[in-house]
Amino acid sequence: MSFTLASIAETIGGQLFGPAEIPVTGAASIAHVRPGEITFATNEQNWKNCLTSLATAAIVPCDSPIDERLPTIHVADPEKAFIEIAKLFRAQVARQPIGQSPRASISPTAKIAASASIYPGAFIGEGVEIGERSRIMPNVSIMENCRIGNDVTIFPNAVLYENTVVGDRCLIHAGVVLGAFGFGYRTHAGQHHLSQQLGNVVLGTDVEIGANTTIDRGTYDSTTIGDGTKIDDQVMIGHNTQVGKHNLFCSQVGIAGSCRTGDYVVMAGQVGLADHLEIGDHVVLGAKAGVMHSIEPNQHYLGAPAMPIREQLLIFASMQKLPELRRAVSKLTKRIEELQRTAATTQSTPTDTSHDQREAA
Amino acid sequence: MSFTLASIAETIGGQLFGPAEIPVTGAASIAHVRPGEITFATNEQNWKNCLTSLATAAIVPCDSPIDERLPTIHVADPEKAFIEIAKLFRAQVARQPIGQSPRASISPTAKIAASASIYPGAFIGEGVEIGERSRIMPNVSIMENCRIGNDVTIFPNAVLYENTVVGDRCLIHAGVVLGAFGFGYRTHAGQHHLSQQLGNVVLGTDVEIGANTTIDRGTYDSTTIGDGTKIDDQVMIGHNTQVGKHNLFCSQVGIAGSCRTGDYVVMAGQVGLADHLEIGDHVVLGAKAGVMHSIEPNQHYLGAPAMPIREQLLIFASMQKLPELRRAVSKLTKRIEELQRTAATTQSTPTDTSHDQREAA
Amino acid sequence: MSFTLASIAETIGGQLFGPAEIPVTGAASIAHVRPGEITFATNEQNWKNCLTSLATAAIVPCDSPIDERLPTIHVADPEKAFIEIAKLFRAQVARQPIGQSPRASISPTAKIAASASIYPGAFIGEGVEIGERSRIMPNVSIMENCRIGNDVTIFPNAVLYENTVVGDRCLIHAGVVLGAFGFGYRTHAGQHHLSQQLGNVVLGTDVEIGANTTIDRGTYDSTTIGDGTKIDDQVMIGHNTQVGKHNLFCSQVGIAGSCRTGDYVVMAGQVGLADHLEIGDHVVLGAKAGVMHSIEPNQHYLGAPAMPIREQLLIFASMQKLPELRRAVSKLTKRIEELQRTAATTQSTPTDTSHDQREAA
Repeated sequence: MSFTLASIAETIGGQLFGPAEIPVTGAASIAHVRPGEITFATNEQNWKNCLTSLATAAIVPCDSPIDERLPTIHVADPEKAFIEIAKLFRAQVARQPIGQSPRASISPTAKIAASASIYPGAFIGEGVEIGERSRIMPNVSIMENCRIGNDVTIFPNAVLYENTVVGDRCLIHAGVVLGAFGFGYRTHAGQHHLSQQLGNVVLGTDVEIGANTTIDRGTYDSTTIGDGTKIDDQVMIGHNTQVGKHNLFCSQVGIAGSCRTGDYVVMAGQVGLADHLEIGDHVVLGAKAGVMHSIEPNQHYLGAPAMPIREQLLIFASMQKLPELRRAVSKLTKRIEELQRTAATTQSTPTDTSHDQREAA
Repeated sequence: MSFTLASIAETIGGQLFGPAEIPVTGAASIAHVRPGEITFATNEQNWKNCLTSLATAAIVPCDSPIDERLPTIHVADPEKAFIEIAKLFRAQVARQPIGQSPRASISPTAKIAASASIYPGAFIGEGVEIGERSRIMPNVSIMENCRIGNDVTIFPNAVLYENTVVGDRCLIHAGVVLGAFGFGYRTHAGQHHLSQQLGNVVLGTDVEIGANTTIDRGTYDSTTIGDGTKIDDQVMIGHNTQVGKHNLFCSQVGIAGSCRTGDYVVMAGQVGLADHLEIGDHVVLGAKAGVMHSIEPNQHYLGAPAMPIREQLLIFASMQKLPELRRAVSKLTKRIEELQRTAATTQSTPTDTSHDQREAA
Repeated sequence: MSFTLASIAETIGGQLFGPAEIPVTGAASIAHVRPGEITFATNEQNWKNCLTSLATAAIVPCDSPIDERLPTIHVADPEKAFIEIAKLFRAQVARQPIGQSPRASISPTAKIAASASIYPGAFIGEGVEIGERSRIMPNVSIMENCRIGNDVTIFPNAVLYENTVVGDRCLIHAGVVLGAFGFGYRTHAGQHHLSQQLGNVVLGTDVEIGANTTIDRGTYDSTTIGDGTKIDDQVMIGHNTQVGKHNLFCSQVGIAGSCRTGDYVVMAGQVGLADHLEIGDHVVLGAKAGVMHSIEPNQHYLGAPAMPIREQLLIFASMQKLPELRRAVSKLTKRIEELQRTAATTQSTPTDTSHDQREAA
């Protein structure tokens, strides 16, 4: 597939500076662009990077310089224009509604909107409800009495245990498991006995759950994820936890049971939370933080055990100087011993008693 | 759905203090209870929390006070009674045996008990054996020659590679993978060559494996999990590892190859173990511990690298004081320099030689 | 199943020292061997371990001693011979090509080699291409326009999003998800808006991806994994990341978006990388390392935040001495105070001014 620079400029309504007939065979960002492809710049630094890249042409802001070495198309919003062109090259998958595949297993008691799509291999249990335009992709398993809103996409091989509730416009990625048993046991006579599993998982609207993430059901109540919260791949959220609105959890975060987060909380990769913590609104937790205590709103924490980031960075800096510090202390010790020795010598004659006083102190 | 307080009291055989006809529309724990719902208390502190909660009524211990503000039902075991009521409100899924779904793919050489249930989309390979009353849920894949005991539940989309053995009463959650290849390579001429994969995975009886957990097969032998051990979601257990009985591993624990754990070992979230370690009976590993060496029985370890918890907590406390310590040392250094300077001045006249001795020391 | 020692010796072309008719009922490595089974030794230490093990016989190097207590079969390469015998005992699964199962869902626009095997429950989307002898196992979902090379195995329940490219001889384990959405958002008016998802995932040749690992697609371009790279279970690789050739990533490693690794990079378990880092050729990252900055080739890093291993080990050692160091500093402080006090006493008469100078310093 290839387009001329002129036709690309016309498509995105931009002004071309360069030869009209040059063929363009692909679109890629600066870091990945190869000869024959078009890239884009959003500022002058980017524009300079385009010049030294292998790109055949670039989409640039209107006020960018013109340079003989690189044909450019000038537009108001280069990234938006680039996306339009990139879509020409990348086969876009426009999935049409497919209705209910005869290869899906659908309970006769399920209520499925006419505009929903149920792909082959999907299992839809008794009493399940699925809203308008929602798509249940291949080999998804949705157990009894789940309620799925409108415009939801559940990607292949995800699993929803019974009674899970999913709000409108949620995206649930492949391999996600919602509603597995909470990890709670009572140990009696040397045996671990599973706690009650009467609760479920409830997602608000516009929630995204990344691939292979797991969210366990509540003991008696619901484990809940607030509206607009986005969760990356391989995150674990324990039973009874209440996640607020518009949180962002990066990959491999682990939240133990019965925690509660405010709104707009951000957790970087591999963060871990102990159970029963309260994390305030707008808290930010740095990568690999290990949080043992509740955190007030608007704080930025880091490290394991987690501390306010300013203190933690000082501690990190100090740790790097630790071997040096030990050497300094051992030198000091020697110097003090010498001082004491010489002091003892000096003082031995005139004020001999002071030494005894010192020992007694 | 709604029940009167009187009918609830009758159901659980309790004594009601409050208006008989009040309707109850749900059951929830104190932290989640909403108006119209009933909750429960197990002690006096809980009972006070009930008073200030939104609950319409509470199930409480026999000897609890009576308070006009909150109708209460008094019983010997409030939690047990609450569970009974909660089940009335929460649609309980009682899965009847379904036999072998025609939508499952079952090898003619598989031996499946008549009382077992094989759901749609399940794949049962050659030579597989499945015991009495066991349930293989939708889209589970069980490869050749696996042996599944009695009363086992395998939740949707779990995968058992060939030769996996599962003891009676195990629960295997959705997305679990048992028996994938061990991560062992020999590097020869710049290529990594996979080691042998002749082993398998063997689970004892009463084992629970959390969602999306992975356990790799042994090289020549079995990776084994002892009777009664409970494993949370997203745990990784490497090839050849031998896990003892009644262990508890929390979410996102990672155990490298060829480790061995005793009985009643507990690992908190995100713990990591290097390979070829021995962890003694009753060892407890705190969250995020990074274990590099074997650990004797009955020890409690914490931190990365992991240390005995008492020492580690002292170290954590000291780390928080590190910047302060550095300042203290730098002050001390100055003070000593002054002392040396003044000592030199003082001594320069009477005992000038001592200074030279010091330098030589 | 059982074989005589004589028949085993004949099978592997070895020389038997011991009774010919002893029956052997299994094969296991020294750590797992039980009575009745045969094991193997590759050196003299191993050979001694065989003597004290429960093994009934052992396969040993040609020059090993002969000992009455343990029948031995002497061969040039004991491990190779052992593998041959182990395979006799362990039911080996030789999967014959099965063609296209009528229980698979295969798009009429897919191009599938005649020698490929598509198992029941597999979903093959529009425009997918699958090469010679490749096996797509049960309940795998392959979305639109994926291209799978020759001799690839995709284990059960793995998911490939649209446009994923898989090189020849790749092994993709159960539960793997390739091409889910990258975790990139723009926050506007309090809402997080998903970034473009125009890219895909591209695996080179001879890549192995462990169970439940997730690799996200690029924003505009490809997330790529180089030839010969081996990735363990539950690893997360973020969008746009470029992994080099022959890397080894152990379990639960997490790599954020837009990183780039050289060739022969090794990451131990639970390592985490921040985004946009460059990791040079032959870098080794120790378990649980938290990498915040790019790393030059041939370095060995450890810790969180990660540092060169020599420095980090010194720091770890110093941390263990921290409580001791604090005590030392507090003792020094007292000793200096005493020295200052006595110095003040000594000097008070002759040189009283020096004290004031000190205070001013």
